[in-house]
Amino acid sequence: MGKVKVFGFWASPYSRRVEIALQMKGVEYEYVEEDLQNKSELLLEYNPIHKQVPVLVHDGKAIAESLVILEYIDEVWKCCHILPTDPYERAHARFWANFIEDKLMHHRIKHAFVSKGEESEKAAKEIEELFELLEDEIKGKKLFGGNDIGFVDITATIVALWIPLIQEAVGKTILTREKYPLLCNWADELLQCNVIKHNLPDNDKLVAFLRHILCQTYE
Amino acid sequence: MGKVKVFGFWASPYSRRVEIALQMKGVEYEYVEEDLQNKSELLLEYNPIHKQVPVLVHDGKAIAESLVILEYIDEVWKCCHILPTDPYERAHARFWANFIEDKLMHHRIKHAFVSKGEESEKAAKEIEELFELLEDEIKGKKLFGGNDIGFVDITATIVALWIPLIQEAVGKTILTREKYPLLCNWADELLQCNVIKHNLPDNDKLVAFLRHILCQTYE
Repeated sequence: MGKVKVFGFWASPYSRRVEIALQMKGVEYEYVEEDLQNKSELLLEYNPIHKQVPVLVHDGKAIAESLVILEYIDEVWKCCHILPTDPYERAHARFWANFIEDKLMHHRIKHAFVSKGEESEKAAKEIEELFELLEDEIKGKKLFGGNDIGFVDITATIVALWIPLIQEAVGKTILTREKYPLLCNWADELLQCNVIKHNLPDNDKLVAFLRHILCQTYE
Repeated sequence: MGKVKVFGFWASPYSRRVEIALQMKGVEYEYVEEDLQNKSELLLEYNPIHKQVPVLVHDGKAIAESLVILEYIDEVWKCCHILPTDPYERAHARFWANFIEDKLMHHRIKHAFVSKGEESEKAAKEIEELFELLEDEIKGKKLFGGNDIGFVDITATIVALWIPLIQEAVGKTILTREKYPLLCNWADELLQCNVIKHNLPDNDKLVAFLRHILCQTYE
């Protein structure tokens, strides 16, 4: 099937998505850690438009953008589907993955958890609405993909791991078990899956990193 | 194949995408025009998350978000592909469609063409960079999809028709033939295709509408 390389960054929820998908499919790959302050020439050559991780290189051809890469992986390596097979269910999964992708942007997270005043309140409210909608969507299901990890679960690892650790890092809590019990149960369930727990960064190291990048402009 | 309905708005580049795709595939559908100031209960029921057009209803099941709908249409009605068949080319098409979708947002267009001062300059520069990248991407090709209309062409009708008419409406020009000859040739080519030209709004009516919605907050 050709040689596979992933250009990623250890603390990026986006590049972790790609690694999770490859490991779900049992695909062997070489991982290249990028220094985001000093990106490699190869990364810039492979992703000249966004200049970001992750990039998947398969047989010398580069693909950027984590959700585009997940679709590619699912189309090339056919075992254990990431997206469902039924077209309507595929559309449903794409809708929710895009929803998470569009709504949980770095600047909104930063505003909700770190900034002060009106801006912060507005961003916190927006994130609360997002959690409410996800709480509603997970109702009656073990995982977003049903009984197995799917496209939405992989996309939503940012909610399962990063958000709780951001809360720990900055000392402000929006996602609570009291308010979002189903979403928190889903996160527990997901983080217990082998392919997920072996593909996520160390909690303490990530908390320290998140504290550093989230608070640096506000100190 | 079951009954097909589209909830759209005549001036929306997003709902036009869905109609173009259905007509490319020869799918018969019922079109429901929405009043965006007074959205129908059905629209809100079918798209409770975003509350926006377009919505495709097929066999009683609703799908929202234009790019998600295009993928669905391509998967259900197999004739004349919207996305290429090769996984790498599919990823490439998804990358560029997402790029247009993410970068040509309403507020950026509004800032670039209508607002004044620093904000306007920044937004105009961002849109120029976008056009430069598209100019580079279309090099050597008749259409983004090659010889036939594809996923990126349908997504980019906003560049082919809406942007020139916004320029006419507000009297400010960023997309010029001198600066972006290949992109303008592509637009000419696309607007001559039967399935496109029969699925776009009337120019004069659209110019008047765009003038109204783009200028209202600045008058």
